[in-house]
Amino acid sequence: MDDPARNAELALLLEVAGTPKPGNVDRHRDLDDLRFDHFLAGAVGAREGLDLAANGAAVGPAFERAIEGMAAQGENTQFGALLLLVPLVRAAREDLSQPVVESVVEGTTVADAAAFYRAFEHVDVFVDEPPEEVEPLDVRRGADAVPALEDRGLTLLDVMEYSVPGDDVAREWVRGFDRSFTAAERLAEAEGAPPDRAASVFLSLLAERPDTLVVKRHGEAVAAKVTDRAADLVERNALETDREAVESFADELVDRGVNPGTTADLTAAGLFIALEHEAIEI
Amino acid sequence: MDDPARNAELALLLEVAGTPKPGNVDRHRDLDDLRFDHFLAGAVGAREGLDLAANGAAVGPAFERAIEGMAAQGENTQFGALLLLVPLVRAAREDLSQPVVESVVEGTTVADAAAFYRAFEHVDVFVDEPPEEVEPLDVRRGADAVPALEDRGLTLLDVMEYSVPGDDVAREWVRGFDRSFTAAERLAEAEGAPPDRAASVFLSLLAERPDTLVVKRHGEAVAAKVTDRAADLVERNALETDREAVESFADELVDRGVNPGTTADLTAAGLFIALEHEAIEI
Repeated sequence: MDDPARNAELALLLEVAGTPKPGNVDRHRDLDDLRFDHFLAGAVGAREGLDLAANGAAVGPAFERAIEGMAAQGENTQFGALLLLVPLVRAAREDLSQPVVESVVEGTTVADAAAFYRAFEHVDVFVDEPPEEVEPLDVRRGADAVPALEDRGLTLLDVMEYSVPGDDVAREWVRGFDRSFTAAERLAEAEGAPPDRAASVFLSLLAERPDTLVVKRHGEAVAAKVTDRAADLVERNALETDREAVESFADELVDRGVNPGTTADLTAAGLFIALEHEAIEI
Repeated sequence: MDDPARNAELALLLEVAGTPKPGNVDRHRDLDDLRFDHFLAGAVGAREGLDLAANGAAVGPAFERAIEGMAAQGENTQFGALLLLVPLVRAAREDLSQPVVESVVEGTTVADAAAFYRAFEHVDVFVDEPPEEVEPLDVRRGADAVPALEDRGLTLLDVMEYSVPGDDVAREWVRGFDRSFTAAERLAEAEGAPPDRAASVFLSLLAERPDTLVVKRHGEAVAAKVTDRAADLVERNALETDREAVESFADELVDRGVNPGTTADLTAAGLFIALEHEAIEI
């Protein structure tokens, strides 16, 4: 039997190796401030936290440890991906299905939420200004927000509910990891080596919904345009018939600093599920 | 303090990410039968064996476990690199210096040698026909050779001594990991991100001695020619002044199936030492 922590780490590596993944670091592209080797080190560093989750630790502390290890290289490379992977790894101890992962996130506590907030002290994460009434719960406050969490009795799932809409990682938590499981199905059906499948599924996810990291950084219009262009490429099967168009789109987004990171997070989650289900193999 | 197992795994990943590395899988090149994702999975799979070494397990069993995990993806990606890394990780528990790693290999036993032989049952390793008098010790016999090992009382260091000349991984074992430490010094002095340094140091090592995997597969004349061409590229600092020439050389060796894998193994060992000594960082 495979070890879920190992497959989770491998999923992070296969995700970043997939190319072309428009706007993201991939096997052939670095961003100005984020290089391929940051992602390699981030994946390796996350392993201890993933091991904790695989061994039955609570979601929050396992996530915090994963982020602390990931961030040892100095950049935020896989925060969102790990927020998906940690509950999925926990679920894989029992059965990696949507009902089980839903029960995992429903079982999170205020202590898990506190650990999630502490994770923000290890790394810079791009987040929106919160509405004024929840300013005491601004994640950028890190551990300083923990008393407010405790006063309100908010679990980590509650915190995720606060973050939807506007954050499609949080949305997975409240919707049974629906797109992650869909991504896994598509990865199983796709052709080629795992990184090629990852690139194909990334594009299909990007074509469906505006990437919420792009919305936060560049606004809804830019995100919608990216989605439309991805949809056009998917519709005409450009990865097979006009790969140059996808490569150009990838270069253009990198040049403009438009980075659909949430879609990459979903791709990593799908890769993990597909590896665990032995629906793909190296 | 960094965990040596984590740094060893990261060294394997940074090695394969370095490009151009003539004749080897790198960030931009696959071989016919070996892809980049095989190396990613090999590094992740080796982690448990590396963890054993970091926790003080004997070299042979830790190596066998590392190879078993590495080989789960089906290909031999990092056998030689792990044969260097496992004793280095063991040494790092105390002090990662040449005298300490020498004492680690001098402390190996017949049981370590037996585990080394069992490792060959997990994976196809390209080896020469042995001379007739040591046929009972042919590594391709795997565990069947263990009684002969025990009869002769051979430790793993003894086995490595048998393999020199003709195997520059074994040569490290009997020469205090001299080239591995030299590679680490060069990595520290090189410029750029770690994978760029890896590519530069790989070329410098290739320029110095014929790669023993190339000798085994293609003969001494081919290996000597590869060394001469690498030396010419190093002499005229081609990675800086004529990168295209290095890229062409890399493409040509891949096309010809000339794969200087031993030089890649030494580069991975050097990366590990440099990471442990904090002489390079991501």
